[in-house]
Amino acid sequence: MARARWTGPPLLAGLFVVLTVLDAISGAPVTRPDCQDGPSAPPNRVDTSERLQRLREVMADSRYNIDAYIVPMDDEHQSEYVSPHDARIGFISGFSGSAGLAIVTKDKAALWTDGRYFLQAEQEMDCNWELMRNGTEPKPPSEVQWLTSELSRGSSVGADPRLLAAKDWLYIDSQLRAEGMQMKLAYENLIDLIWTEGRPPLSDEPIVVHNLTYAGKTWESKVEEARDYMREEKVEVLLVSALDEVAWLFNLRGNDIPHTPVFKAYAVIDSDSVHLWVDPDKLTDEVRQHLRAPGCQIGDMCVTLHFYQEVLHNFGTYIRQKWKGKILLPDESTFIDSVSFSFYNQVPASRLVFVESPIVRMKGRKNEVEIAGMKAANKRDSVALCEFLAFMEEEIHAGKEWDEISAAEKLKEFRAEQTLFRGISFETISAFGSNGAVIHYAPSNATKLPIDTSSTYLLDSGGQYLDGTTDVTRTMHYGQPTEFQKEAYTRVLMGAIDLADLIVNNNTVDMQLSLTVRQPLFTAGLSYRHGSGHGIGSYLAVHEGPTLISTSRRAGHLLEVGQFFSDEPGYYHGRDFGIRLETILLVTEASTQYNFDGPYMKFEPVTLVPFERSMIIPELMSSRQLWWLNDYHKTVEQEVGAILKSQDKQQAYHWLTKRTAPIRRAEVAPSVDFSGHSAGGSTIASVCLILLSFVAIRVL
Amino acid sequence: MARARWTGPPLLAGLFVVLTVLDAISGAPVTRPDCQDGPSAPPNRVDTSERLQRLREVMADSRYNIDAYIVPMDDEHQSEYVSPHDARIGFISGFSGSAGLAIVTKDKAALWTDGRYFLQAEQEMDCNWELMRNGTEPKPPSEVQWLTSELSRGSSVGADPRLLAAKDWLYIDSQLRAEGMQMKLAYENLIDLIWTEGRPPLSDEPIVVHNLTYAGKTWESKVEEARDYMREEKVEVLLVSALDEVAWLFNLRGNDIPHTPVFKAYAVIDSDSVHLWVDPDKLTDEVRQHLRAPGCQIGDMCVTLHFYQEVLHNFGTYIRQKWKGKILLPDESTFIDSVSFSFYNQVPASRLVFVESPIVRMKGRKNEVEIAGMKAANKRDSVALCEFLAFMEEEIHAGKEWDEISAAEKLKEFRAEQTLFRGISFETISAFGSNGAVIHYAPSNATKLPIDTSSTYLLDSGGQYLDGTTDVTRTMHYGQPTEFQKEAYTRVLMGAIDLADLIVNNNTVDMQLSLTVRQPLFTAGLSYRHGSGHGIGSYLAVHEGPTLISTSRRAGHLLEVGQFFSDEPGYYHGRDFGIRLETILLVTEASTQYNFDGPYMKFEPVTLVPFERSMIIPELMSSRQLWWLNDYHKTVEQEVGAILKSQDKQQAYHWLTKRTAPIRRAEVAPSVDFSGHSAGGSTIASVCLILLSFVAIRVL
Repeated sequence: MARARWTGPPLLAGLFVVLTVLDAISGAPVTRPDCQDGPSAPPNRVDTSERLQRLREVMADSRYNIDAYIVPMDDEHQSEYVSPHDARIGFISGFSGSAGLAIVTKDKAALWTDGRYFLQAEQEMDCNWELMRNGTEPKPPSEVQWLTSELSRGSSVGADPRLLAAKDWLYIDSQLRAEGMQMKLAYENLIDLIWTEGRPPLSDEPIVVHNLTYAGKTWESKVEEARDYMREEKVEVLLVSALDEVAWLFNLRGNDIPHTPVFKAYAVIDSDSVHLWVDPDKLTDEVRQHLRAPGCQIGDMCVTLHFYQEVLHNFGTYIRQKWKGKILLPDESTFIDSVSFSFYNQVPASRLVFVESPIVRMKGRKNEVEIAGMKAANKRDSVALCEFLAFMEEEIHAGKEWDEISAAEKLKEFRAEQTLFRGISFETISAFGSNGAVIHYAPSNATKLPIDTSSTYLLDSGGQYLDGTTDVTRTMHYGQPTEFQKEAYTRVLMGAIDLADLIVNNNTVDMQLSLTVRQPLFTAGLSYRHGSGHGIGSYLAVHEGPTLISTSRRAGHLLEVGQFFSDEPGYYHGRDFGIRLETILLVTEASTQYNFDGPYMKFEPVTLVPFERSMIIPELMSSRQLWWLNDYHKTVEQEVGAILKSQDKQQAYHWLTKRTAPIRRAEVAPSVDFSGHSAGGSTIASVCLILLSFVAIRVL
Repeated sequence: MARARWTGPPLLAGLFVVLTVLDAISGAPVTRPDCQDGPSAPPNRVDTSERLQRLREVMADSRYNIDAYIVPMDDEHQSEYVSPHDARIGFISGFSGSAGLAIVTKDKAALWTDGRYFLQAEQEMDCNWELMRNGTEPKPPSEVQWLTSELSRGSSVGADPRLLAAKDWLYIDSQLRAEGMQMKLAYENLIDLIWTEGRPPLSDEPIVVHNLTYAGKTWESKVEEARDYMREEKVEVLLVSALDEVAWLFNLRGNDIPHTPVFKAYAVIDSDSVHLWVDPDKLTDEVRQHLRAPGCQIGDMCVTLHFYQEVLHNFGTYIRQKWKGKILLPDESTFIDSVSFSFYNQVPASRLVFVESPIVRMKGRKNEVEIAGMKAANKRDSVALCEFLAFMEEEIHAGKEWDEISAAEKLKEFRAEQTLFRGISFETISAFGSNGAVIHYAPSNATKLPIDTSSTYLLDSGGQYLDGTTDVTRTMHYGQPTEFQKEAYTRVLMGAIDLADLIVNNNTVDMQLSLTVRQPLFTAGLSYRHGSGHGIGSYLAVHEGPTLISTSRRAGHLLEVGQFFSDEPGYYHGRDFGIRLETILLVTEASTQYNFDGPYMKFEPVTLVPFERSMIIPELMSSRQLWWLNDYHKTVEQEVGAILKSQDKQQAYHWLTKRTAPIRRAEVAPSVDFSGHSAGGSTIASVCLILLSFVAIRVL
């Protein structure tokens, strides 16, 4: 699954552009001059007039007295995805997308989001709302620029410090102060005060123990590993605020966030105690025993339990009364914002260590049990996907009717037949033809297309299994692809292969891989507007740090044995079609002929699904790339084929053997000269084979 | 030329390791238990007893009253190289190397340096000095760790704030404060107070105008470009402290630093004036006119001249009286430390913008005149090197006697015959056999080896020409290289070719290239311990920012059209032999078949010197790599050959035509299977060619 945030610009940056006041419909917002509420408005539009009025009343209340209120998309844990209970932007603005930031002043309301959501926001938000289209030209004002232009000197801007990341808070505050304004702490969330009806409740799903059979390492030894790091870095206290880090640390799983088996909780490790703030109703006796919570005393290896709501109060008390040394608060990292300002604000500067959480790297290096689990889960998931692909191909060729949504449902059924399945790992991107050109498309009844033989079908999906998480993309064509579609597909595949085929040393960082995977596209003047890979959790988040293969200029993250990450190049052609190929790779030790400054590492694919033969131009590929492809297909046939055969799935097995047979170059030179950088090897071989056939004819 | 600092660890970091007190010779320092001064000491040893005594007297003087004194290698401009006048470490310690840091306390003296200089430091420094060997195990204490263990609480550590980089100062000070000590400003340099005899004078070489024929852009338009940046970033004042930035900005050149045509000066650009602090004796009337200095008034495009020594005083006055807005001080960048603490200390935090100097990127993008000049200079330099290589090969094969130093001298003679030559651009690395395994080797009478047919000869050299700077490395073998030497050479060459053959987009950063250039070595388990390339100046510093192809985890620098950088992989085998190949590349626009998110860029080699045929195994290379190599050699033959022919240099021309003839794979498969990743193409072709020859034999 390609990461949502990759394509969007940072929410809190950008150059100021003065908005031109257009001849607008009376009452329509400046940025939406054609906006009209009433009977002709889209059916999914939300009337926010009363909500805004109530929010403004609270803002004006003497207890708060603020001139603007910021509503971030984050929950208290700065996670990538939030629970429906925390969809505060959805309530106040009507906008139900998953990326954005809203600000309400006394007389205006504005939402910032990126290109994926412009249409949706236009439909869902009524004319009370401005729409700031990030990434378009001319650039909209940034949030801070808009605030300073809307407000006068002396104004106060409120926000819930539990929801706003410390870095964002500090940045906004410094910018506002330069204009004689300031941020104001609003510990009571103003949306929560007015969102009293129809709010989805907090999840009450119980927390369960994630068995050692799958976790591979006790929570006690993970705490010890964290303490080793803390001793080395001279840190007394470590706050664990990311939900997947808490779940990983204690070998617990929950169901508070869609598609991600985590639960809302904070943890702290210090030198002689371990603390967990969580809703006690979610804790079974088994979990309490697992944590050695009953009778837990300072100095023992056990967990002291606290009420979730008391974390800030307790944290402040400990800072004053228990802890004397340095306190590590998590700075931003891959897929997570920095810790909320509510913690940052409590730690004296002299005692603050504000760096990436050490749990990020610890969790990234899967242990042997997790590695075996991830391999097994990905293999079973590949079996399900192969069954689906075999089924769908036959259905479409038989002229049966399928659309993006019914296909995604059918795929889920195949997955659900696999053991240890616990649900899909993200909303399936089932995108036919022009919908495939929308990188982060998710089908809806309004947009869904039928699947037929006229274009490409991009399918990006994954599953949660007790022993691992999966994420796989393949692009199919059930008819006759154009020569350009074939070339684009082949170049995407060549990049995916070149990345998977690399040997790296132990000083290699993720972002260095970017050039390799894009090179076959670059040589033709093609590219794509998303990253090329991301880390993945073990029955946890489908997007997990530290690995992020991006083209950003930031410092990279070291590749380490035991990491899993996706290898996912793509190409998106205007509004016409899309191609993406995604395969999960395991970082493993390589055995090399020599070993200077070694050991070296290689990548092992754990996703085992064939590529689309009808879209591959073997003459464009190097001999090495073709060798890799055929070797991979052979492995797929052996591993997935054995399971299909043992389960007597004749149709799927037959499909698999056809789809994994060796691919060879035509015995005549290709008529088109693709002048690709990698085509050199094939040219010599082709010319030689032609000569050989001429000679052979003469002889015979 | 591979960069010195690449291999060394940071000077001010590292883990503390308690030094074991060994059974040492009485009076010998702990880290040099066998140190003995007196008649048996090396002849190049310097007696520092009296100097240290005088320094300690000054340190104890009530005007200073400090417990330790830090002597950095930097001059006032934090440059990579310094003038002999500024070699303060050399005076106080005897150590004449170019990387290190010295600290003197009341009873001890210690020098930190890296592996290149251990032997030299042992010889040159007397037994008053500890030698801290950075990069060895167990790790020596860092400078701060040593200070805090040697001094007691309440101690003061002095340093000249003009010489110590702001970042280093702030770091040391924060660490000392944690132990109850502190840094103390010592504006009078204590070494200067006692170095009264035998000190090389400051250079009095005049500054000259660098003609527009070579510079391509007036200094006035460069000032305007800087002001565009300043307006955009809302900066009122820009301090230019790096020597090559000052020289570039004003189109002036000097001769204050060996091998680098710069002069000691500071510049400031603000909104209505331009200032230059420089020794007035170095200014000719021509230079004053060039700068429009006579009668210069605020608001005009002209330069206000000041005495070099008054820069800090003037800067402080302007901060209080003239400037009201933000002041940009240069943070560290490629090849340069952050600005000295003496400036940093004067700017109020609220007005400080501490970022990379914008001049770094402006200077990095060469204009069309500079590009033409760099190409021409590199071509003439290549002519000289080809003449030398042809000459040397004949001499060695004729059994003539040459050593590393006489060869380097001879090479300089060939360079000096070229027009616009102004000297070599760095001390030539002329390294035969085992000396080639020392990455930063420079020959001395004590170490020089004769050049013969028994091993490899690594030659890394460059020239300064009025129209450009050059830097080129080739590795030769005048006898029979071993199979392993050939494989290593070929893999180094394959990496160099793969880098030169890349297509990149305008979002690519330097460090991303690292993996490509190392990949052919990595696949065999080989690597090298230095960076893979660096930017280069136009008749300026041979090491120039922003480009640095390194494996560090820092953020990278964007590649831009007009940049020149070196492509220099290598391999160093134990203490046996060394291989390095270095070619300067120009970043230029690429024309691609499609143009999605373009334009794209490619790299054009401007160094035109053949590679060593006897060390190339063509069967190991891909068809594409062989094509590149033969295409490059063809260009070399055409461009350099034409000049050699026109000058009737028969011997060199003959050598060149032999050395640039097409290289082809043997018509039988190689007997050794190298199992290299890139060898796939060759295997199919080889097998096919074997079949073809069998068939041909049958037919004929």
